[in-house]
Amino acid sequence: MTAGLLGVGTSSFGKQQDLHPNELMWLAVEEALDDAGRPDIEAIYLGTVFGAPGVAPRGLHHLGLTDVPIITVENACASGTTAFHEATQSVEYGRFANVLAVGVEKMTDQFAGAIHPEPTDPEGRSGLALPGLYAMAASRYQHMHGVTDEDLAMVAVKNHGHAVGNERAQHRTPHTVEEVLASRMIADPLTLLQCCPIADGAAAAVVGDSGPSARTVRIRSSVLASGGLWDHRSDHVWGFELIRDTAAAAMEAAGVAPGDIDVIECHDAFTIGEIVTTEAIGLAPEGEGVRLLHDGHTRVGGPQPVNPSGGLLSRGHPLGATGLAQIAEIVWQLRGDAGARQVQRARLGLVETMGGGVAGIDGNACVVAVLEAPST
Amino acid sequence: MTAGLLGVGTSSFGKQQDLHPNELMWLAVEEALDDAGRPDIEAIYLGTVFGAPGVAPRGLHHLGLTDVPIITVENACASGTTAFHEATQSVEYGRFANVLAVGVEKMTDQFAGAIHPEPTDPEGRSGLALPGLYAMAASRYQHMHGVTDEDLAMVAVKNHGHAVGNERAQHRTPHTVEEVLASRMIADPLTLLQCCPIADGAAAAVVGDSGPSARTVRIRSSVLASGGLWDHRSDHVWGFELIRDTAAAAMEAAGVAPGDIDVIECHDAFTIGEIVTTEAIGLAPEGEGVRLLHDGHTRVGGPQPVNPSGGLLSRGHPLGATGLAQIAEIVWQLRGDAGARQVQRARLGLVETMGGGVAGIDGNACVVAVLEAPST
Repeated sequence: MTAGLLGVGTSSFGKQQDLHPNELMWLAVEEALDDAGRPDIEAIYLGTVFGAPGVAPRGLHHLGLTDVPIITVENACASGTTAFHEATQSVEYGRFANVLAVGVEKMTDQFAGAIHPEPTDPEGRSGLALPGLYAMAASRYQHMHGVTDEDLAMVAVKNHGHAVGNERAQHRTPHTVEEVLASRMIADPLTLLQCCPIADGAAAAVVGDSGPSARTVRIRSSVLASGGLWDHRSDHVWGFELIRDTAAAAMEAAGVAPGDIDVIECHDAFTIGEIVTTEAIGLAPEGEGVRLLHDGHTRVGGPQPVNPSGGLLSRGHPLGATGLAQIAEIVWQLRGDAGARQVQRARLGLVETMGGGVAGIDGNACVVAVLEAPST
Repeated sequence: MTAGLLGVGTSSFGKQQDLHPNELMWLAVEEALDDAGRPDIEAIYLGTVFGAPGVAPRGLHHLGLTDVPIITVENACASGTTAFHEATQSVEYGRFANVLAVGVEKMTDQFAGAIHPEPTDPEGRSGLALPGLYAMAASRYQHMHGVTDEDLAMVAVKNHGHAVGNERAQHRTPHTVEEVLASRMIADPLTLLQCCPIADGAAAAVVGDSGPSARTVRIRSSVLASGGLWDHRSDHVWGFELIRDTAAAAMEAAGVAPGDIDVIECHDAFTIGEIVTTEAIGLAPEGEGVRLLHDGHTRVGGPQPVNPSGGLLSRGHPLGATGLAQIAEIVWQLRGDAGARQVQRARLGLVETMGGGVAGIDGNACVVAVLEAPST
């Protein structure tokens, strides 16, 4: 069987302190089940990072989703795409017919007060929270490739601009390069508007037989990889090799080349992330990703739009939900359901999510999936 | 392919505050890899309930276990058996050749001070911590079946007695019925020695092709189920239906009957748990499980020993590790490697783990696996 996406759904994204994680899940799951035509669900994979033990069965049996295997998975920021990947593999290998993948995170519960790096985390023990790690990568990248602060800021300008068309996004205000650079410094050179916000949200997808359908998005490939030990002699900045190798494996399995991809959702937790990722995927040679921003290549309206939803930077980044929110966006794009932010003539989409410690001293994971529009 | 257990390993169990979760994992994983003859591992499933995000890649890449997909799973107390189940299914369906399943929990980090039921948990909001819920089940069971406090205590006497022969068990002191009943009351009728202790520990298993081997334990079946909504009109106590149905499905898939099983590790988190579980598996008619204790049926030396390791009550219950510790015990028993607690002529073993809210208002899960001795 070739697995396909029968339906997707999401909550809104943002600080939603009044909503219980169950309520966020219900919004996403009900929309996905309706979208899929309510097939019988044989198993459920749920991705979350900080969800309480038992969050999956607790939340889901109120929807009548009982008496099926429910498995919660965690893979840091890639938890949602890990749930998607496990659902996809279980359908591909004939284990289940229709599987629900769900992602949920209530970040405002977890980070209600001051945020401290986790004390048992080797990066945390060094004082390296994620903004600091990404900032170090950005500085290194700037040094290697002669890239300016203004260049970095252009990612935020593009993605905040995209989010204006996404009514479920957390931040929908367009910003100029000057505004991005003038926002509060978080970790030099990354200013506030270059960092993904704390968000609550949920997203879901129903994976099943892709069959012939005017609505089902085909899953051409899905690859999950975990990174090896960081080689400090590497000439690349963090994550580059893992994203490059995972994306290459996913595109090879799908039989496509980087130039074939029409629309991408990728892990822009910080502006530098999108630049490195677009290079690692192969949209530009290493060190030249900024050109994609200057010439409008990755803007909606350009040949290969990246993060039309607004990305993690603007849609928000509820960890466990993010991967499935990316999947939902690409499904909407490939079905022509993306409204104001619709990418024209999108036949092939790619999703990339990065999870775990960015320095690679801490273990990390990457999921890349290639999706294809319904064959109408 | 028919999946088999190529090797198993565990840490010791107990309060081990000086050991980092990584160190607990290393002990279990190194032993399992050595036991399996160090095959190439293609994927890793790790079960934990309270493990920090990223616990799996952080811990494992120090062992050189890098560049393979690593997926952390959670299913409350059944997290370890969920990791085992996913590993087994991925081998059975031809997704991977050799998979490592790991379970780990550092309970003394999590429960360093006073323990409060989780505030977002519907049972917790009612003041119902697990001992209270099991105590209510025990009281109901006593009312229905005329069972005495002494009868309940006999489970603890048996399992604490078994653990004397298990040098990795947390509690290795034998106790009399009088001592069990005289221990501090936790939740009437359950005294301290009828409740599983707070434990740290890890366990691991290598799942691969069972092939013909003098050492590989064949996985005849593995079934993971999640429970439905609790029917308050039920004539059974909590969990009975879920365990009964999951065990029946696992035994049917394995082509065996309850009377064929030679040795069992089951979820005796509290004494009442073992009584209900042995009935649900089919060793005794409902309400008559106490007879198995009175006539020595489930004691090592009897026809169907239950929890020869000491069970959760005496080996200890490090949540995510428990399921794989049960698997390891049955593997040792079926290979004849169980030393002082060896069950004679054990050809078929059964593992049962229960996860999640015991009242069923909270979602729960059950995993049952049937294992067969190497075909020497």
